[in-house]
Amino acid sequence: MPLESVAIYVPGSTASYPSSVLMNAIPAIVAGVKRIVMINPGYKGKQNPAVLYAAKKCKIKEIYSIGGPSAIAAVSYGTKKIKKVHKIVGPGNAYVAAAKKEVFGVVGIEGMTAGPSEVTVVCDKFSNPEWVASDLIGQAEHDILAQCILISKDKDLLDKVKIEITKQLKEIPRASVARRSLINNGILMYVSSDAKIISIINKIAPEHLELNIKNYKSLVPKIKNSGSICLGKYAVMAMTDYNVGSNHVLPTNGSAKYSSGISVNEFYKRISYINLSKKGIESLGPSVITLANYEGLVGHAQSVVKRIRRK
Amino acid sequence: MPLESVAIYVPGSTASYPSSVLMNAIPAIVAGVKRIVMINPGYKGKQNPAVLYAAKKCKIKEIYSIGGPSAIAAVSYGTKKIKKVHKIVGPGNAYVAAAKKEVFGVVGIEGMTAGPSEVTVVCDKFSNPEWVASDLIGQAEHDILAQCILISKDKDLLDKVKIEITKQLKEIPRASVARRSLINNGILMYVSSDAKIISIINKIAPEHLELNIKNYKSLVPKIKNSGSICLGKYAVMAMTDYNVGSNHVLPTNGSAKYSSGISVNEFYKRISYINLSKKGIESLGPSVITLANYEGLVGHAQSVVKRIRRK
Repeated sequence: MPLESVAIYVPGSTASYPSSVLMNAIPAIVAGVKRIVMINPGYKGKQNPAVLYAAKKCKIKEIYSIGGPSAIAAVSYGTKKIKKVHKIVGPGNAYVAAAKKEVFGVVGIEGMTAGPSEVTVVCDKFSNPEWVASDLIGQAEHDILAQCILISKDKDLLDKVKIEITKQLKEIPRASVARRSLINNGILMYVSSDAKIISIINKIAPEHLELNIKNYKSLVPKIKNSGSICLGKYAVMAMTDYNVGSNHVLPTNGSAKYSSGISVNEFYKRISYINLSKKGIESLGPSVITLANYEGLVGHAQSVVKRIRRK
Repeated sequence: MPLESVAIYVPGSTASYPSSVLMNAIPAIVAGVKRIVMINPGYKGKQNPAVLYAAKKCKIKEIYSIGGPSAIAAVSYGTKKIKKVHKIVGPGNAYVAAAKKEVFGVVGIEGMTAGPSEVTVVCDKFSNPEWVASDLIGQAEHDILAQCILISKDKDLLDKVKIEITKQLKEIPRASVARRSLINNGILMYVSSDAKIISIINKIAPEHLELNIKNYKSLVPKIKNSGSICLGKYAVMAMTDYNVGSNHVLPTNGSAKYSSGISVNEFYKRISYINLSKKGIESLGPSVITLANYEGLVGHAQSVVKRIRRK
């Protein structure tokens, strides 16, 4: 059954990402959550109109212009004006992530780390270095903490991509962010075999993986840890951020080893219903009595004994 | 796909609960987890033979006699002798629960609080006070932190159960634990209507709910928050702890508002695969370019532009 209420955290930034609203709100709507709250610090005291439009399309009626750890506290414990929710989803900065971990137990949170974005791209001699460079820049422009890793068996292609990156960095407004991200966290990696490439990918457990290679079909079954995998040269990560149908809220920082992207499951819970007939407890009860007595839980055993003893 | 590795925490106690091994290990096996590790402090330096037998039945080959927060740290970060795992499940005491919350992000944990056990029992004039009393005692004997709540529209029955509890407490070995639990955390509650009972249950969100009443069918659809619901007079909680097929690792402390009991889902994750043809990106790409440019992510837009522009 659906959760009763959730809060979606939308990070404040110049961009303010309307797609963040959609990626969290749509699965919540599909699950049947009745009360969806949006918390969004906005930018310079104003809400972005595209974010508000996305919220309107999702019929979100409760919107609070608040952000950071105090916003997380507000929806977790409730305030005079804000009724508490049952779960908080949506990526935020390091402070928001820490606050969510702190309130876990008071409310639910995603079972993953939704932190700074990461991409690992694998390319081969058939890849277009101009395209590959643009993919890395598209990732690096997110955040100075964003991580880009390029892996190839082709040294020549790695060199070509490097030259392309320098060239293309001049062409985007967020060049300074992208440059710092690439310098601090960017890795170009020459790897000699497919087996080693697979092993490295499974260790990284990247949020986004692009297999910009001809033989991606032979690699895919061996990749166990990744949030999402883009197959072939046309499946570029930027497309998956918007309208290809997959969710872009994905496990980061290695959490793809144990968790998945946001889906309807995040907004759904199950209750176990147990019905026993007289015959049922008479048949299953004796084993329970034996086990409970062995465990020293005589009270457990007695509650069954009383129901099956002959009068 | 299944997680690669999980650790199951089994609390140490006089009893040492072999059923705790089964309730966590069986869904992990069904999910296909290859490496299942058991961590169990044992009792007075010894492993309980029934716990080891349960582990053997589950083909668990890695067993470490360790417990508490240091055990959680060991499997999360790895040691010289213990290889790290990807997720830790299983209930523990307050220190273990705090340690699991601390390492969340390094490893996965359940999306709920698996803390001290709780039961809420609803009874009516048709209920057997002797049976109901035994159910509450069966819960109370777990732990001095265990919580028992009895709710009824029938004052007379509440009185009868109270007398029965005093009587039956003399008959179990763990009477001192059960008595302290009932005195500290036990509540007998007279409630005048079904509507109020439902509202109270949904606020408590009990781990276990027993509807020891005749008209349980009319209440069930309105109960939104509970880990498991026992229907009718024969479905006693003690049965659900062992062999009725439902899982007994359930959300406690109100976490049934946003989470569910342990199931195969806990040991499973999903990867999104995205494949785009040339035609596909030409059709979906223009919207992405518009959105990305609006969000100020020109690098994102460019990675699409380069793939669809006419040469």
